[in-house]
Amino acid sequence: MRIVLDAMGSDTCPEPEVVAALEAARLFGEEIILVGPADQLRPRLTALGGENPLVRIVHAPDVITMEDKGLGLALKAKRREAKTSMAIGIDFVKDGAADAFVTAGNTGGAMATAYYRLGTIPGVERPGLTALFPNKTGFCTVLDIGANPDCKPEHLLVFAIMGSVFSQKVRGVQSPRVGLISNGEEAGKGNELVKGAYPLLAASGLNFVGNLEGKEIFGGEADVVVADGFTGNVLLKTSEAVAKLMSDLIKEEIKNSKSLGAKIGGLLVKPVLKNMMKKKLDPAEVGAALLLGVNGLVYIGHGRSDSRAMVSAIRVARQAVDAKLLDAVRQAIQERLTTQKIQEAV
Amino acid sequence: MRIVLDAMGSDTCPEPEVVAALEAARLFGEEIILVGPADQLRPRLTALGGENPLVRIVHAPDVITMEDKGLGLALKAKRREAKTSMAIGIDFVKDGAADAFVTAGNTGGAMATAYYRLGTIPGVERPGLTALFPNKTGFCTVLDIGANPDCKPEHLLVFAIMGSVFSQKVRGVQSPRVGLISNGEEAGKGNELVKGAYPLLAASGLNFVGNLEGKEIFGGEADVVVADGFTGNVLLKTSEAVAKLMSDLIKEEIKNSKSLGAKIGGLLVKPVLKNMMKKKLDPAEVGAALLLGVNGLVYIGHGRSDSRAMVSAIRVARQAVDAKLLDAVRQAIQERLTTQKIQEAV
Repeated sequence: MRIVLDAMGSDTCPEPEVVAALEAARLFGEEIILVGPADQLRPRLTALGGENPLVRIVHAPDVITMEDKGLGLALKAKRREAKTSMAIGIDFVKDGAADAFVTAGNTGGAMATAYYRLGTIPGVERPGLTALFPNKTGFCTVLDIGANPDCKPEHLLVFAIMGSVFSQKVRGVQSPRVGLISNGEEAGKGNELVKGAYPLLAASGLNFVGNLEGKEIFGGEADVVVADGFTGNVLLKTSEAVAKLMSDLIKEEIKNSKSLGAKIGGLLVKPVLKNMMKKKLDPAEVGAALLLGVNGLVYIGHGRSDSRAMVSAIRVARQAVDAKLLDAVRQAIQERLTTQKIQEAV
Repeated sequence: MRIVLDAMGSDTCPEPEVVAALEAARLFGEEIILVGPADQLRPRLTALGGENPLVRIVHAPDVITMEDKGLGLALKAKRREAKTSMAIGIDFVKDGAADAFVTAGNTGGAMATAYYRLGTIPGVERPGLTALFPNKTGFCTVLDIGANPDCKPEHLLVFAIMGSVFSQKVRGVQSPRVGLISNGEEAGKGNELVKGAYPLLAASGLNFVGNLEGKEIFGGEADVVVADGFTGNVLLKTSEAVAKLMSDLIKEEIKNSKSLGAKIGGLLVKPVLKNMMKKKLDPAEVGAALLLGVNGLVYIGHGRSDSRAMVSAIRVARQAVDAKLLDAVRQAIQERLTTQKIQEAV
């Protein structure tokens, strides 16, 4: 198995990427392809004592930065002769020379590069950015968290099928419970999009559990949570922000408390809080978001990712390769299209 | 000043309503009109020792329950001869016999009853349900949190104008910073709705601070946060659910901790956590949601509201009456319409 790691993605690149490549090669004992400017990468690798033959540097002179956007970004992503680390890295996956691509770079850039260079799985119009959210009982799979701000009901159906296959194959959930984010649990609640998607999901043959609100999502009542990319992104950003606000408020409340007991208690509880945040909310534990629906495994991590987060992303990418996730998604989409065609013909 | 309290709203009605009416009358020294079945209310009032002449019972034989929905609900809300506690209570406001209406009942029912019986302020097509959200520095005003699952850009502009006036008049914010919930801070980010609303807000003369994500909203970077009712509802439900999840996880982590220190610390920190949750996240402190844009002050609290939450709702309703909120909203909307007409004529 070969994983490609974009050396020029994270905010402090390429240091964490080089460290992560060495660590992942050591940990998994298989090749890591590190893509970026060779003149920058080679000395760092040497400085880190890394003449590990499993870390292979592939030269890419150009990069997509956080400033790239709009038409300029689309051109950088699309042009056949593009020499960005993302384009060259993703072409390895396209050509079958690698099994998955991992980056902590510009999310829009990675999505566009993957979309243009890999194309989508037959039947998938819109790929969905897929992430794990912590809940009461473990984690749930949420998509789309930002690839498509505007969706049609059919897109949500495809997200549901892909998320369900992911949950089954990679997360090991037998019959994943699939839910739809809405502004009320009852059937019939929702905006026009949700009202349009509900009957499609109900008739899909998936284990559809209906509309979900926050308390069901975080209470662990679904394994797969489906939304348009705007709503999914608001869900993601809100949950991160509220977790941070709570943690800040607790610390402040303890600091300002006049009770010595509370101050001592705060010190004693601190490692517990830290442990919980780490287990449940640390991106390094969860890895990176998967762009589901393109013809290749593409993982996109946060720009603030450190080497530990990147090794996690490589680990989850390896699980998806092992599970033959893409074949399973292709087959599930194919089956649904066939069923639909038969239904339409009858 | 006279406030109408729906006696038949909350999940355990009318007990908390009767207690709240007595407490509010005692606290504020002004009349509370308690609307509901007189044969149920009179004995409770007597049993609670309440022959307070400031609590006036107005008979309403019918109620809107949590089960009422769809066309049946619309008819119950609209019919001129409706005898529900909501209809009779809101008619008091319509006829100028009371200054505000407070209920902990069916949100859709209260919105529909208010919409049909009071009508909207000239220039307001869609009223927005308005609530306070805790943030790092205090509270911000968010609308719409659920009245309109589907909106047009013009609706978001009207929400922004109304929220800004509310923030100024009732919350005492000099020049309220108004932001738009989006899937990215940069201008140009958003779904079609947000992209359409952004230029309207930028040209509105309001103190528009641009697009907001969770970290800005909960970090305190805006006083007024605008969204369609679907997104606003997801924001509300997600923040409630994540706060609960965090609090549950902390308790569990402390319980399961093998460290005696952490257990003792947990006990010591408990009152701090409780105090924080109360100050920041307790609906009893925040009161109820205001339906902004109808011709009358209508506050809708959670069905789980206790008497303390209702007294809070009455308190915030009184503040809005004192601040002459509705006149200010009417004037602001009028000014904007005039400005727009002049701009269109030029």
